Amino acid sequence: MCAQPLEVAVEAHVRFIEANLGNAGLYPGTQRLEKEVVRAIGGMLHHEGAGGSIVSGGTEANITALWIARNVTRRKKVVFPKSAHFSFHKACDILGLEPQMVGLDEKFTADLDEVKRVVDNDVCAIVGIAGTTELGAVDDIEGLGALLPDGAFLHVDAAFGGFVLPFLDHGPPKFDFAVPEVSIITIDPHKMGMSTIPAGALMLRDEGQMRTIRKDAPYLDTVGQAAALSGTRCSAAVASTYAAMRFLGEEGYVKLVKGCMDVTRYALEKGTGIGLEPVMDPVMNILCFYAPDVVRIQSEMEKQGWKVSVARNPESLRLVIMPYVTRDSVDGLFADLEEVLGGLDD
Amino acid sequence: MCAQPLEVAVEAHVRFIEANLGNAGLYPGTQRLEKEVVRAIGGMLHHEGAGGSIVSGGTEANITALWIARNVTRRKKVVFPKSAHFSFHKACDILGLEPQMVGLDEKFTADLDEVKRVVDNDVCAIVGIAGTTELGAVDDIEGLGALLPDGAFLHVDAAFGGFVLPFLDHGPPKFDFAVPEVSIITIDPHKMGMSTIPAGALMLRDEGQMRTIRKDAPYLDTVGQAAALSGTRCSAAVASTYAAMRFLGEEGYVKLVKGCMDVTRYALEKGTGIGLEPVMDPVMNILCFYAPDVVRIQSEMEKQGWKVSVARNPESLRLVIMPYVTRDSVDGLFADLEEVLGGLDD
Repeated sequence: MCAQPLEVAVEAHVRFIEANLGNAGLYPGTQRLEKEVVRAIGGMLHHEGAGGSIVSGGTEANITALWIARNVTRRKKVVFPKSAHFSFHKACDILGLEPQMVGLDEKFTADLDEVKRVVDNDVCAIVGIAGTTELGAVDDIEGLGALLPDGAFLHVDAAFGGFVLPFLDHGPPKFDFAVPEVSIITIDPHKMGMSTIPAGALMLRDEGQMRTIRKDAPYLDTVGQAAALSGTRCSAAVASTYAAMRFLGEEGYVKLVKGCMDVTRYALEKGTGIGLEPVMDPVMNILCFYAPDVVRIQSEMEKQGWKVSVARNPESLRLVIMPYVTRDSVDGLFADLEEVLGGLDD
Repeated sequence: MCAQPLEVAVEAHVRFIEANLGNAGLYPGTQRLEKEVVRAIGGMLHHEGAGGSIVSGGTEANITALWIARNVTRRKKVVFPKSAHFSFHKACDILGLEPQMVGLDEKFTADLDEVKRVVDNDVCAIVGIAGTTELGAVDDIEGLGALLPDGAFLHVDAAFGGFVLPFLDHGPPKFDFAVPEVSIITIDPHKMGMSTIPAGALMLRDEGQMRTIRKDAPYLDTVGQAAALSGTRCSAAVASTYAAMRFLGEEGYVKLVKGCMDVTRYALEKGTGIGLEPVMDPVMNILCFYAPDVVRIQSEMEKQGWKVSVARNPESLRLVIMPYVTRDSVDGLFADLEEVLGGLDD
């Protein structure tokens, strides 16, 4: 789900390739760039004053978010839906937290009744997903906010959705800092932000909370070490994100997302046209179809040169319609898919 | 302490800029490259069969090493010297481990008597440093190995030293898998390996231990997700490391390190020539001098355009002699430093 980065993003990456954001004393320019990028993403997520940092990706951002939540609250329980990215299991293992998974409702989003039953005062964070990895479903973030116990964090994983939802024309649900309970957001510029790897972003409503994870590095040119999981950090990806965001602007992202959604809807038609049933009406540029023996279909399609992924919950064929996917490639894909489906009984 | 990467390393980086090692099913070539790089580094560290992975840098490698040690041993205590990188404090906080710091002996290396006094059966890992960040001192890794409690890990942080020590001509102490007790080694290609950021390496004697941190990612093209802290991983830095190591070869690194050590010894002479006392005879290309009011000297030198860092333990002026530092730049630096020292009483 990482993007083919924009040319201007790659160029910016190369110009900053030796700079290390982990030693901002030596590379003060990259720290300024990071502040600019954080400010721009904050504005996009309805909170101009948001703090944060550019990290290696959604996994590091999710781990760091729960690290902050644990250190601030001194509590152990994390509530997240079954549709959450596997990085939350990783984070719980690393941080010694107790995962409390909840099921999904008929819209494939976190079941609020179940959340209500499991929340208590041991909860350090409730996690909502704004664009699930498998289906692109968006949890009811306002609904989760209403169930948040006192002092707990509401963390939104918008790693993939963060650069899509703000630019949709069909009135997406509120998922960001516009929801007053939202504390931290994960959003990945190297996915739909069109920047280079490794560019994730950790966005905080209250920047001061980063103090709880800060460690000093006495030998660096800046005595106080930025609060981050990583030490050496890739300034190049920050420069690349800056370049991509300045180059595209809001208008550019709107156009890009519109293009992806047009192709997604076209693919939905093509799929239903050959008799496939979509798992859900796509909210974003991810599209899943029920099919018999999906793993075999995947492998047959691979022989034809197509990379189709498989979602497990529910088991289905999964297409991520990135900006380079065109109507023409969709035509080719479904022609081959129809043939593969026809040959399944052989 | 990150390198200005080689041209060939930058070129390789750009060619792989959109590839994601975290989704090896989609980018099988980068997984092969990673295996090649791990094998080459393993050979360099005296264990051809070593396993491991390329991570974002020394901090991620150190955190992952202790994560594995904790999950395998189910113990809580980590013994490390005061000279250890601050990432070990970070790792202990994240992982819920108890740091047990020990002091240094007269060679600025871990005091073995103190280590002996504090080790017990709660120890999950002893950490030795092969090239401390501040002074470039190398702990007695064999001595630490002799004190290792049954079942505990001996982790060596050679983030900076790992691409220097094997290539020194003056018979460096054993620090790698040649010491039978060594379990895991951190080594950073983006430091003296001349690769691009973010390229760290986590090297394990027993690759099977990575199972203890593995999490499944059902939607990826490969079902079993590689055991790594990060999700999306930067294939470009792996390709860059591969290019740098193939381009330089052992001979190239020997030449590079010899050049750095020549300039380091030249700088040592120049420093003593203007009346400065070195903290220790440099083992590697890091050089520290005692001086009065080091922070003021640092700021005066900065006005002249020099970036001199300050070590705190003991307080001293610190120079890292990277490959781009020449005798000429050393001449210029010490001429200005002499002037700054002369003006200190003003």
